[in-house]
Amino acid sequence: MKLISFMKEGIPGYGAVQDGRVLDVSSVLHTEFPDLKSIILGNAWDKLQDACRSCRSFNLDSVEHLPPVPNPSKIFCIGHNYEEHRLETGRPKTTFPSTFFRFADSQVAHGQSALIPRVSSEIDFEGELAVVIGKPGRYISAADALSHVAGYSCYNDISVRDWQRHTTQFGPGKNFPCTGGFGPWMVTADEIANPQALELTTKLNGHVVQRASTSQMIFTVAELIEYCSSFTPLTPGDVIVSGTPGGVGMKRTPPLYMAKGDAVEVEISRIGTLCLTMEKES
Amino acid sequence: MKLISFMKEGIPGYGAVQDGRVLDVSSVLHTEFPDLKSIILGNAWDKLQDACRSCRSFNLDSVEHLPPVPNPSKIFCIGHNYEEHRLETGRPKTTFPSTFFRFADSQVAHGQSALIPRVSSEIDFEGELAVVIGKPGRYISAADALSHVAGYSCYNDISVRDWQRHTTQFGPGKNFPCTGGFGPWMVTADEIANPQALELTTKLNGHVVQRASTSQMIFTVAELIEYCSSFTPLTPGDVIVSGTPGGVGMKRTPPLYMAKGDAVEVEISRIGTLCLTMEKES
Repeated sequence: MKLISFMKEGIPGYGAVQDGRVLDVSSVLHTEFPDLKSIILGNAWDKLQDACRSCRSFNLDSVEHLPPVPNPSKIFCIGHNYEEHRLETGRPKTTFPSTFFRFADSQVAHGQSALIPRVSSEIDFEGELAVVIGKPGRYISAADALSHVAGYSCYNDISVRDWQRHTTQFGPGKNFPCTGGFGPWMVTADEIANPQALELTTKLNGHVVQRASTSQMIFTVAELIEYCSSFTPLTPGDVIVSGTPGGVGMKRTPPLYMAKGDAVEVEISRIGTLCLTMEKES
Repeated sequence: MKLISFMKEGIPGYGAVQDGRVLDVSSVLHTEFPDLKSIILGNAWDKLQDACRSCRSFNLDSVEHLPPVPNPSKIFCIGHNYEEHRLETGRPKTTFPSTFFRFADSQVAHGQSALIPRVSSEIDFEGELAVVIGKPGRYISAADALSHVAGYSCYNDISVRDWQRHTTQFGPGKNFPCTGGFGPWMVTADEIANPQALELTTKLNGHVVQRASTSQMIFTVAELIEYCSSFTPLTPGDVIVSGTPGGVGMKRTPPLYMAKGDAVEVEISRIGTLCLTMEKES
């Protein structure tokens, strides 16, 4: 099932996407479950399926997308998790995943404008597979980890490169508003038995700039869940953004940064395509 | 004014501390302002002062402390912000503050047990001045920054050193549950005209292990607010933990890590003393 969060006539909602239409589950369940995160938290999949049969619907293109989970409590980003990207950045091999965090208010939805902040012009794409946590846990073992996944989505972990390099810590370059592209929807985990067998493509103005299989990840989705849940509890709606393949703009000669008006897409097989347009912050 | 958040007979509340008593402001204002963050957000200082005159009160030692702000949206931690600590860690000088993040659920209150996780024994103290944001803002200038402060508190930014060193990113070593000591209360900014003129002392089992003046910070509180607000909006209740002086346990010979039963205190002049006892995670 494809689940989305959206705005319709200024009111937030959520539902399922089928055959180009949005089934507005929130119109039935909003009192008990105000948002998609509360559905995940409440493990309310049966109620959601029931509501799909009785709720109103409208054309997908009549809604404005929100990030599938607009309000994750925790967003974990993983650095250098594809060998080709590790080599292009010159980073050493590590025994553990390089892990930093993104605030929820840095996110931006499919079809919206990502923002080039006024303080930088080194704005780089990073196509990534996003993992949405469905079941809470601490010290989750890799063997059990995929049972904690609610679904998968596309992420563009847009980086402000000069701010990422201010010190050793990546956070400042990864938290500017409207730089965490997330969407267009979350595909539920039952439809993706193996998250390590997906094809990921990033396109800038129609040209392929990144292409890889998630089989090339250094740490698998299951291992990332094990690692992150070792130092902090995972809760439903949390997101793990699993790292970007080679091909980032910063490491090209000359560097290929994004500019106002650029269209950037992250496509993942079995999921869909996340589209953003670059805008300059006013 | 000293403002605290607390638990009393299993119910959370907040109020002011005066002469060893807690004025339970929440007993009057809880409908409109459910927690101290909402007071800060609502700029409801007059209502809080009024409530202090009419509310019930009880002995300070009859309540259990909570972190002054139990639920900040963002907690910024600053690394190597005192020259002596920068030198002992061998870190290069940086033009910008080394900035990483802590999740709110890693916090622990005054008088409570901080947790040594089962996966590490390299648990280190870091006494720090915490700055609580009172007024929202983006691109705040250093000149205007102190007008955005609601108050100050003590913080023990306890580090799990081996997890902090897994990669270049500090986050995993800074987010284990019950490692962000915060309290005992927030002193409102009107009582601390100059946050760069405070004496900070950390004691382990009664022995002084860190002592410094906040005048020795490399980046001032005002500069930290300017920096953090450049890459993300600041909102009321956000916390900036401004860095630790020299003397951390990791850099001693032999290293001085904390063990079960240890008592660790962070004392800051004009604020008070944050006390924690180290416990082993079960």
